[in-house]
Amino acid sequence: MRYQAQFIQALDSLKAEGRYRVFADIKRSCGAFPHARQTIDAASRDVTVWCSNDYLGMGQSPVVRSAMHAAIDAAGAGSGGTRNISGTTHYHIELESALARLHGKETALLFTSAFVANDTTLATLARLLPELVVFSDEKNHASMIEGIRHGGTSKLIFKHNDSADLERLLRKAPADAPKLIVFESVYSMDGHIAPIREICDLAERYGALTYLDEVHAVGLYGPHGAGIAERDGEMGRVDIINGTLAKGFGVMGGYIAASRACCDAIRSFAPGFIFTTSLAPAVVAGALASVEYLSASEIERACLQERARALKRRLTVAGLPVMDNPSHIVPVFVGNPVRCKWITDTLAERFGIYVQPINYPTVPRGTERLRLTPTPQHTDADMDHLCASLSKLWAEYPASISAMSEPFAKEA
Amino acid sequence: MRYQAQFIQALDSLKAEGRYRVFADIKRSCGAFPHARQTIDAASRDVTVWCSNDYLGMGQSPVVRSAMHAAIDAAGAGSGGTRNISGTTHYHIELESALARLHGKETALLFTSAFVANDTTLATLARLLPELVVFSDEKNHASMIEGIRHGGTSKLIFKHNDSADLERLLRKAPADAPKLIVFESVYSMDGHIAPIREICDLAERYGALTYLDEVHAVGLYGPHGAGIAERDGEMGRVDIINGTLAKGFGVMGGYIAASRACCDAIRSFAPGFIFTTSLAPAVVAGALASVEYLSASEIERACLQERARALKRRLTVAGLPVMDNPSHIVPVFVGNPVRCKWITDTLAERFGIYVQPINYPTVPRGTERLRLTPTPQHTDADMDHLCASLSKLWAEYPASISAMSEPFAKEA
Repeated sequence: MRYQAQFIQALDSLKAEGRYRVFADIKRSCGAFPHARQTIDAASRDVTVWCSNDYLGMGQSPVVRSAMHAAIDAAGAGSGGTRNISGTTHYHIELESALARLHGKETALLFTSAFVANDTTLATLARLLPELVVFSDEKNHASMIEGIRHGGTSKLIFKHNDSADLERLLRKAPADAPKLIVFESVYSMDGHIAPIREICDLAERYGALTYLDEVHAVGLYGPHGAGIAERDGEMGRVDIINGTLAKGFGVMGGYIAASRACCDAIRSFAPGFIFTTSLAPAVVAGALASVEYLSASEIERACLQERARALKRRLTVAGLPVMDNPSHIVPVFVGNPVRCKWITDTLAERFGIYVQPINYPTVPRGTERLRLTPTPQHTDADMDHLCASLSKLWAEYPASISAMSEPFAKEA
Repeated sequence: MRYQAQFIQALDSLKAEGRYRVFADIKRSCGAFPHARQTIDAASRDVTVWCSNDYLGMGQSPVVRSAMHAAIDAAGAGSGGTRNISGTTHYHIELESALARLHGKETALLFTSAFVANDTTLATLARLLPELVVFSDEKNHASMIEGIRHGGTSKLIFKHNDSADLERLLRKAPADAPKLIVFESVYSMDGHIAPIREICDLAERYGALTYLDEVHAVGLYGPHGAGIAERDGEMGRVDIINGTLAKGFGVMGGYIAASRACCDAIRSFAPGFIFTTSLAPAVVAGALASVEYLSASEIERACLQERARALKRRLTVAGLPVMDNPSHIVPVFVGNPVRCKWITDTLAERFGIYVQPINYPTVPRGTERLRLTPTPQHTDADMDHLCASLSKLWAEYPASISAMSEPFAKEA
């Protein structure tokens, strides 16, 4: 193959920085989550997973699994086509209705992932609204950055969760240009929560559309699991809500919920929606069961919050540098990619704890971290073992503590 | 919601052109394919599906379904994370090995869809190979057009399947610039097959990488179902092969197969790979079962080709304007979006035949068509009913025949 040298050179630069990624080969065992089996070469070991985004453990829910089994028996494996060409199954219609109801919107639209939903929706909004000016939170996820870039519009980046800075930029933009504010409710790597009310106030004042990514909140927050906007009573003021069927709902796929005309326009013009095989019926059926279950059951959400508080408290007591935030995400600061990987490798090898190191480009360089995700299934004993193991490693490799103290202070 | 007027205006323009899309709500019944149930408002009717890309009917294969059931029981619903963060299951590793073996490449890489595989791989190749010049077949799929556009490189479009035109462009490009030729093996809307050998000859002569989309060929062509490049004995000369786990394999998801360094670089730098939840274990397990089954069984492939020949023969005998091609795809020319939709609506209402009208942007304006996809499961009786129904409609709406004759002549 030609150009091998260029590929190898690019990989070497990652290795030199200590941020070349090695994927852990994990086999979950249904019913045993968060415990799983990790394969390393020919051997394998038991691990406790502390970095999954299956926040509520819905991936092993009997309700979800039996809906998937039933759909496979009834309708088969794949949908057989794009949404337009034979790939709209009755399951898709039902899930879109359920998601619209969940978010109090006229309609919803499914995508193969929330990444694709963000990427192709934001790019297409720019086509539909000529001269659009996009206002984007500086910590927005890669999928939104890609979508805005692909739309080719003017983009103004506001300081993270800073509505004063957003207003400064809104004032600067031409009064008659269409405007779109793009932000997240829960920022996945820091666990920060957006000031949705303030941002919606500004959107009204300056005539901007609001696009809110709730992927780390759906299933998890609000009386029906519709997310932070539901919890805060602001759902009706957000124009377009983006969510995932992975993470809280435990399956895969993504969606937007919005007005009928908006979803219909995206449905009709977005390449990432039009030109791809639709989600498999079993995936859609599993997601539908999960959405319906979690809109009626609050216990998983309450338990997750209790577990997150318990873990943060234990880590703090142990003197470990938890990055404070008001959500269920528990980041622990490291600040160096090599140290971060040493910690996670050692956690797995010596303590049977699986946490993936988080480094650039997922977080800015110098803010490398562990990102712990407790679930309702993590016990007190799991937490005690995690905290004791981390404390040992922090004592063995104290450089990591001094290296992180300054940026950590900024972060907190 | 603000800006509703702009969304409605965009939709009105589609409606005025007669190309506003209405999705058919289809419920397949496992074991009965190609027969299915279509829901219209509160009613429903039995239809024969003639437009699915489940080319071999693998969507209802007991082998595929039982692998999916087993994975749900063993591992649960979703993977629980991105490939890097807890979402690489043992199923993913096994399927990537099987796909690498299938295509005779060092390794393979899974994506949530073949659309995403094309989009993010092509965009990332442009980042990895500065000054890249891309040579793209004029009929390439939207996903490749998007990927090339997102890469922001120079793009030169060569005439469809025309290696002389490709060589003319290769000669014009700077000799020392890295080059990439992007093409498909089977073009889905016309059924044309690429001259892979000639294109690989040119790639060698001019030092270009070759990127071949085999999504309408994998499972279907070649002794092991690896595609047209396998059938033609050219697989080893193609640098990067793109394929789908939907269509021939009957599930969902996409992949590339290439050298270790190339896949590793895409794995490490492509946003559409990195920042998204990985495919659900059941999807991966089903696809693996399908790939393994079809690499050992030739009967489905042979049967598909026989059925496609039989359908083309019957349509030709009936005097219907089949667009000739050497593949399993059976396009019938219409040439007008309104007429196209009338034909397909009437087919469903009066004859219980479901074919989606194919119009812009899936095909160029003025080349609207029916796209019939026979499968091993379509019987002679299904074909007779289809041909008789189409003949009646062609006689009732003869304008469509005269309107199409000139562009049809060009097409054939």
